Amino acid sequence: MKTLKISEAVVRRLPVYLRHLIELKQREVLTVSSQDLGQKLDLNPAQIRKDLAYFGDFGRKGIGYDVSYLIQQIRHILKLDQIINVGLVGAGKLGHALCNYTVYLKDNMKIVAVFDAMESKIGTDINNLKVQPMSEMITTVRNQHIRIGIITVPAAEAQYVAEQFVEAGVEAILNFAPVILKVPSHVRVHTADFTTDLFSLAYYLTDQGKEVPVQ
Amino acid sequence: MKTLKISEAVVRRLPVYLRHLIELKQREVLTVSSQDLGQKLDLNPAQIRKDLAYFGDFGRKGIGYDVSYLIQQIRHILKLDQIINVGLVGAGKLGHALCNYTVYLKDNMKIVAVFDAMESKIGTDINNLKVQPMSEMITTVRNQHIRIGIITVPAAEAQYVAEQFVEAGVEAILNFAPVILKVPSHVRVHTADFTTDLFSLAYYLTDQGKEVPVQ
Repeated sequence: MKTLKISEAVVRRLPVYLRHLIELKQREVLTVSSQDLGQKLDLNPAQIRKDLAYFGDFGRKGIGYDVSYLIQQIRHILKLDQIINVGLVGAGKLGHALCNYTVYLKDNMKIVAVFDAMESKIGTDINNLKVQPMSEMITTVRNQHIRIGIITVPAAEAQYVAEQFVEAGVEAILNFAPVILKVPSHVRVHTADFTTDLFSLAYYLTDQGKEVPVQ
Repeated sequence: MKTLKISEAVVRRLPVYLRHLIELKQREVLTVSSQDLGQKLDLNPAQIRKDLAYFGDFGRKGIGYDVSYLIQQIRHILKLDQIINVGLVGAGKLGHALCNYTVYLKDNMKIVAVFDAMESKIGTDINNLKVQPMSEMITTVRNQHIRIGIITVPAAEAQYVAEQFVEAGVEAILNFAPVILKVPSHVRVHTADFTTDLFSLAYYLTDQGKEVPVQ
């Protein structure tokens, strides 16, 4: 049997669908068409149907998608129906902001431990978590079954932190430091970079709808 | 003459190319092939060649891309060779982190004003910027020629802030609040959402390389 790997682009769109579906549910919308989703999210409806069809047959012709059912299915595909513990290294402003931010999540993904190398930060409180020294990181990651690591340290320290996370056994890393991390291929890394968002916005400032000749 | 709109996906990849090219330049690499770029960035080399070809004929067969020249060209395409002033509303932890973060940028894109609605924050200092009250926002945006607005306020306040930005005349908004903003079509909005990154990582935790039958 031939098989097909699902691209990262598809996987990255699922949380976007999920976020919008949750908003629809809060407004007590029961069903939604791929046309409506597409219009709202600035995506081609055919693309949305294709993305979702990788995972199952969720929509009904002429009716669309049942909002609650699709939320439940996407949460399952993304494994948000499991408890996923997250650890964060770097108790600076961004680390604080991320801890605050994820408190709002109703999901089972939670930052359960925060680490920092700086003496002055160790023992301080972030959302009821005591900042731990780096020397405790590997033990804590293993004891608390932390599966995702978040890196919010300066660029120069990020590679070292990533290596510690890998040694501790995390399966995935979300990296906010502006460097490309070198990790073994079994560890998944996503880079979160504000400059990517800002810089791509700049493109639209004076050339929105810029057109080039078809070759 | 037929024309073609360049997709947001292409535009969003340009800063990723740029970041990697700058890293190569720092390591004194002079030329790079689309194969090398593709391997590093986990993208198909043909995709990279196609993306760049929208904007010009930058590569040479058998040699690849001149790193310095391509940096200069991408900076020009993204308009990073212009001065672009940015305003931020929401002087919380995330707002602080973003101001600190962009200080490191060598580019002409700069946060030049910070606003907050909370009495206790007004007048405090963030990276040598005094936090201003919301009542000054429209005047300051116009006087300082602020073209991009960043929103780091709680979800419930984000739509109001977006409307103020629009009234003041910004052309683009980077929204960190977990809501979908309603703005006129001439204003470009990108949503930055940590949960999108985190949730899409979760997908890879136990099913990395998940395979489904080709239909």
